[in-house]
Amino acid sequence: MSEATASPAQRLAQLREAIDATDSALLQLLQQRRQLATEVGVVKRALGQPLYVPEREAALLSARRAEAEAVGLSPDLIEDVLRRVMRESYLQQQAADVHLEDKTIVVVGGDGALGGFFAERFAEAGAEVFRLGPNDWQAAAQWWPKADLVLFAVPIDITCDLIAQLPPLPEHCVLADITSIKVKPMQAMLAQHQGPVVGLHPMFGPQLATLAKQLIVVTDGRQAEAYQWLLETLKRWGAQLYQTTAARHDEAMGFIQVMRHLSTFVYGAHLQAEHANIQELLDLSSPIYRLELMMVGRLFAQNADLYADIILAHPENFAMMRRYLDTFNETLSHLERGEKSQFTQKFTEVGQYFGEFSKKFLEDSQRLLASAGDAHQLSKVGGS
Amino acid sequence: MSEATASPAQRLAQLREAIDATDSALLQLLQQRRQLATEVGVVKRALGQPLYVPEREAALLSARRAEAEAVGLSPDLIEDVLRRVMRESYLQQQAADVHLEDKTIVVVGGDGALGGFFAERFAEAGAEVFRLGPNDWQAAAQWWPKADLVLFAVPIDITCDLIAQLPPLPEHCVLADITSIKVKPMQAMLAQHQGPVVGLHPMFGPQLATLAKQLIVVTDGRQAEAYQWLLETLKRWGAQLYQTTAARHDEAMGFIQVMRHLSTFVYGAHLQAEHANIQELLDLSSPIYRLELMMVGRLFAQNADLYADIILAHPENFAMMRRYLDTFNETLSHLERGEKSQFTQKFTEVGQYFGEFSKKFLEDSQRLLASAGDAHQLSKVGGS
Repeated sequence: MSEATASPAQRLAQLREAIDATDSALLQLLQQRRQLATEVGVVKRALGQPLYVPEREAALLSARRAEAEAVGLSPDLIEDVLRRVMRESYLQQQAADVHLEDKTIVVVGGDGALGGFFAERFAEAGAEVFRLGPNDWQAAAQWWPKADLVLFAVPIDITCDLIAQLPPLPEHCVLADITSIKVKPMQAMLAQHQGPVVGLHPMFGPQLATLAKQLIVVTDGRQAEAYQWLLETLKRWGAQLYQTTAARHDEAMGFIQVMRHLSTFVYGAHLQAEHANIQELLDLSSPIYRLELMMVGRLFAQNADLYADIILAHPENFAMMRRYLDTFNETLSHLERGEKSQFTQKFTEVGQYFGEFSKKFLEDSQRLLASAGDAHQLSKVGGS
Repeated sequence: MSEATASPAQRLAQLREAIDATDSALLQLLQQRRQLATEVGVVKRALGQPLYVPEREAALLSARRAEAEAVGLSPDLIEDVLRRVMRESYLQQQAADVHLEDKTIVVVGGDGALGGFFAERFAEAGAEVFRLGPNDWQAAAQWWPKADLVLFAVPIDITCDLIAQLPPLPEHCVLADITSIKVKPMQAMLAQHQGPVVGLHPMFGPQLATLAKQLIVVTDGRQAEAYQWLLETLKRWGAQLYQTTAARHDEAMGFIQVMRHLSTFVYGAHLQAEHANIQELLDLSSPIYRLELMMVGRLFAQNADLYADIILAHPENFAMMRRYLDTFNETLSHLERGEKSQFTQKFTEVGQYFGEFSKKFLEDSQRLLASAGDAHQLSKVGGS
């Protein structure tokens, strides 16, 4: 059956076969690329080079974009595809890249989700790791004297008490925590241990498969040079470190965690109280609202205690949230009186406050929604 | 320089060259696939077949996933890549797929953003289109008698008044609107015109390049068979239609639009009032919070009047928002008294209300964050 004599229906079948063959060839290329990337990981390890090299990535993308433009293909298409492929590469290369065979590490709370995540990474890198659960303090006695790192990964409300129960640690031992508040745990660690102290706040959840490109906030305690090996390890794993003070960190978290979690919580509670039908809301939603509903609903699949502790950790944030409610009340009162111009004027003011960010956020969200739309990611539940 | 004798640094350079060559080959394949997909569009047009065929897409993906698993490649990787590639195909195929050469269409508000979007699609499909702006009512006199479709795309607060000013239309003419409320415009259209009437609410903004996979809510007015050609056209363009009543639509929009826009607005206003430093918040944020901050900030890059009109269109929603504030106030009071168990208990209840959705939303959001992370989409502004 040649192209010229085929009926449209036959031609469609031919074309579909050709597309399937192209897709198979594409799959073979991805497989080939994966093998090359794995070997890159091995060689980089031999050279002691970091996994993620922003300049190489940028150069590679820019070369392919130019090539795409030259043949009339969308540069965004090849960039999006290659970024997705490179994410896969990081996943594979990561494990082989760090060596901690000479370290002994105690993770207090290593049986928890995020503590367990770090314990696993350390163990994969060859460290001797002791995961200390609530009933293991007696068994831990033999571990403290040889510890190179003691990492606290326990709920906020018991972190400081547990730190205060620590026996003396070796002078060179790094004492660190991954609590999502920093001022109080830092004080507790500095009081308890005379050696190197560093605070970490990993800005991601334990569901991740890799640290590549993830943010970790770092607050210095004491003897920065003595805990560099830990920061270096995190960087090798691909994490981005951001240094700040414990006080600035905690202040920002009032907005980042308390305000957001609390308003999300109330949003969900109100939908429940109003008996809103979630499936119907999804069916009737634009992609952006489906995204927003997703952001609310996802909270409630998580740990209630964790969120309660985060919100309760800084009672001074309640005054800030009272001011938030005042603003809400005032806005609603204006609207109830039909004062449209008050609303639009305030809208413009807030727009000026956001400045270039608001336009950037709008563009980013459109790009994000486009990629979410590819996979119907925001509407997979039920019959929509 | 052979593989065996190369130093690690030389080997790294070799591997990078091989990766570049693979990426170029991949680009050639994508280009080849694009040409095949374009021809598929032409053939489908000849056959009168719809552009988006969910079954074909599912079969294609499932075949490639199986192939990937067989060679040890991630099935998610090939699926994500192919979905991205197919989005590009829809973009190209769409324009050629609809023919409206025999239609005359008046878009009232065709000089606006979303009205202009539809006017452009109709014109591309060959229809004779008259874009009616605020000063064109006199010039429109010659268009009404030959109109096959009159589509209202004007701000909410003037829609009903303008509909009431319509002269008599031909009996067969379809009268439709794309207002984001439905009860009042439907009443106005049914009162003004005795022929076919249909309400549309496109659940997307005018920034889109294509209707593929986008949701449009449809509320029936009168003579459904006579406006089928319009719905058929929207479906050909790839839109997903969702039929409901005007009343149910408007009730759901209380949650979807009013509650969301209002809380987002207050969120932004509060950040401004507290002088929060947006760049610092971004620097210190997890991907999920960067996403949430983006969802807030993007609002303020948009039209203040549009949001004011949406919020003011249904004053009965203000009572619902008062109840929202009551819930917020009550929650905060419990927390101020340190009543953690009240919070966690309510958290569990709301989790039960969300049911399977909360887990699904959490998974969806993780997948979305992973693809956003590929492109640093949520942190591109400033020095982060």
